[in-house]
Amino acid sequence: MPSAWFNVLPCLPAPLAAPRHPILEREVDPADLAELFPAALIDQEMSAESWIDIPGPVLDILRLWRPTPLVRARHLERCLDTPARIYFKDESVSPTGSHKSNTAVAQAYYNKAEGIRQITTETGAGQWGSALSMACQMLGLDCHVFMVAASHRQKPYRRILMETWGAEVIASPSATTDAGRAVRQEHPDSPGSLGIAISEAVEEALLHSDTHYALGSVLNHVLLHQTVIGLEAKQQLQLAGETDPDVIIAACGGGSNFAGLALPFLQPHAREANRPRLIAVEPQSCPSLTEGMLRYDSGDIAGLTPRLWMYTIGRDFIPPATHAGGLRYHGAAPIVSNLVQHHWIEAVAYPQASVLEAAVRFARAEGMIPAPETAHAIRGVIDTALAARRTQQQTLILFNYSGHGLLDLAAYDDYFHDRLPDE
Amino acid sequence: MPSAWFNVLPCLPAPLAAPRHPILEREVDPADLAELFPAALIDQEMSAESWIDIPGPVLDILRLWRPTPLVRARHLERCLDTPARIYFKDESVSPTGSHKSNTAVAQAYYNKAEGIRQITTETGAGQWGSALSMACQMLGLDCHVFMVAASHRQKPYRRILMETWGAEVIASPSATTDAGRAVRQEHPDSPGSLGIAISEAVEEALLHSDTHYALGSVLNHVLLHQTVIGLEAKQQLQLAGETDPDVIIAACGGGSNFAGLALPFLQPHAREANRPRLIAVEPQSCPSLTEGMLRYDSGDIAGLTPRLWMYTIGRDFIPPATHAGGLRYHGAAPIVSNLVQHHWIEAVAYPQASVLEAAVRFARAEGMIPAPETAHAIRGVIDTALAARRTQQQTLILFNYSGHGLLDLAAYDDYFHDRLPDE
Repeated sequence: MPSAWFNVLPCLPAPLAAPRHPILEREVDPADLAELFPAALIDQEMSAESWIDIPGPVLDILRLWRPTPLVRARHLERCLDTPARIYFKDESVSPTGSHKSNTAVAQAYYNKAEGIRQITTETGAGQWGSALSMACQMLGLDCHVFMVAASHRQKPYRRILMETWGAEVIASPSATTDAGRAVRQEHPDSPGSLGIAISEAVEEALLHSDTHYALGSVLNHVLLHQTVIGLEAKQQLQLAGETDPDVIIAACGGGSNFAGLALPFLQPHAREANRPRLIAVEPQSCPSLTEGMLRYDSGDIAGLTPRLWMYTIGRDFIPPATHAGGLRYHGAAPIVSNLVQHHWIEAVAYPQASVLEAAVRFARAEGMIPAPETAHAIRGVIDTALAARRTQQQTLILFNYSGHGLLDLAAYDDYFHDRLPDE
Repeated sequence: MPSAWFNVLPCLPAPLAAPRHPILEREVDPADLAELFPAALIDQEMSAESWIDIPGPVLDILRLWRPTPLVRARHLERCLDTPARIYFKDESVSPTGSHKSNTAVAQAYYNKAEGIRQITTETGAGQWGSALSMACQMLGLDCHVFMVAASHRQKPYRRILMETWGAEVIASPSATTDAGRAVRQEHPDSPGSLGIAISEAVEEALLHSDTHYALGSVLNHVLLHQTVIGLEAKQQLQLAGETDPDVIIAACGGGSNFAGLALPFLQPHAREANRPRLIAVEPQSCPSLTEGMLRYDSGDIAGLTPRLWMYTIGRDFIPPATHAGGLRYHGAAPIVSNLVQHHWIEAVAYPQASVLEAAVRFARAEGMIPAPETAHAIRGVIDTALAARRTQQQTLILFNYSGHGLLDLAAYDDYFHDRLPDE
């Protein structure tokens, strides 16, 4: 297991544009963020160091499931009759079933160390809420999760998971915040939205001095914490007698699982000849990288958070409901956007049915049931491996198996019964 | 990974009583079983060899998730403030989420090798049906699963899992067999039962010469295939610088996860001084080992299968519905029964609420969400570790983390809302 995170900021092709204050016409400064985040995370957000030590207590918890396995998908290779060698990093083995736990533990730790008693957050599909709940339980923090009301009703399993780890889960809009009460007054039956849930979580954090807020993707420090994935993979490939990959593929919503796997392969100062192809796969229904514009936009729909320089389809865009809730985000992380702009990352988008077709193919070959988000990466892998068959190239493909689909089986049922619109 | 299974038959304290024909008053002979099982499995059922080679193609599939991790539960140890060292074998990492895949792959392989085209089986909660579906998919066999109608309605996720692996899942009682049609005629709204589902699966296997039937527990060959668990654990403990365990604990329904972990620690010819304490944990609501009688009884409720010499609470006993569906079985495997009779195994029974309390404690300490069946073992582990605290003994405890509870979260919800009868 690595003992330091890899910070890509010093070796980006161009410096990141500074985040801007959501209301005042100026750059954000650290003091603006101190009501929501601990100082250590604000430092990491801007750090110029290439390596940042992982605190011991964080390592002690990550060790419960890390290092995660690097697996060669030999059965899939055989099914595809491809000369490509396909490896994946299995992040689904974390107790919460996805890579989200990697940053949840780190964020909970720094908050605890700063004397914070409670963390609030929002969750849509529930992966991030689950991860933060577990981390808070292990570090002795209270956790309040504002869960979009529609998910709260439709996904009781994710709610029960969070409660099992001791979190309080509140259907949003709730009666406990001004923001929630305002929405309820106007729309008593509101199904909620991520935008409303963020407003509630942020309001609660601002109101109590012992309470902070946490985000599960997009920000630099979140991507930083995910680099354990790529750092481990690099070393595991060496142990397996392999070189660095020719192609690295991951699904991309906010960008944290993609960045976590890919960024460590850019070190130290990647010249073009040494860089692997990096392919970010997004849903056609929410195509921020393939159809969005690079500009300042808010990270949240309500416009409460700093404006970030990123590829976005606009914070007002409401993507259609799909099974890949983790990819339904209007923007891409500033770091990922920077690399796309400078052509270090290629982006592709697929429709949902073709993604689920890939998921079933993988499940029948390797046994494992991928999350719909992860299946986007698999679609990209299958197409890359088939291209390698046509050219008979011994491509080495590495992808991120970011999470399992055991709590998302309705997606498979919809696929088998032709209920997925091809968008 | 071990390359041979450990067969305990030659070193049992007394020979097993032979199974008896369900109708004719005589011992079963191999020919009676040939319509249902391949010859290789019938041989294993009676084998006098201590070691039986695992066929290469079976190893190639088991390697997808084996060897499974041996994990030290340090966080639980700390919470319990115990001098005991607690290790568990994590069988939940198999694609189907439980130990059942170990035998499913072996059974599918031997059927395929004998030219069988299709396997039928029954499933209640769905773990066994999932495991056999995946194994059949990987070995190119058709799989028909008769799923108890009530579960088919209430547990769509397990059904979707089986379908994702290509199985045909039929709600039982069905219109496709005589047995099913007879029940439907009398009770058009029958919720089904394991007994009816077995009758349907057996009928279909008997009707077609290219079709066999498969069982997920109880029989000697099933327990044999599970010994990979204990064999790996033995070697992993050595690698960790530990001795053999002082106490081995597992949940016990039919007995296969218990036997899989425990039996290899009885080799070669265990004298009492060297034997670890073996503790089988069963639900108080279905107490075959702690309250049953040792006698001949049918393995199935309908009385179609050979009568086995085992601890049983009677095949007519209908245990109350609980969340630990995998432990709702009226009898215990003949091998386990033999060892209980000769005091090589101790048995204890716990009520459901106390089992779920242990599950939540484990989830909050180690992060992982155990299946309700597995939580029985954890209840036993916690009590054993607390006893070690009282006596300040450095007990080495090993238990079987037989499966995860991600598809059983309703059990946790019922626990948190006081909906579990204390039985």
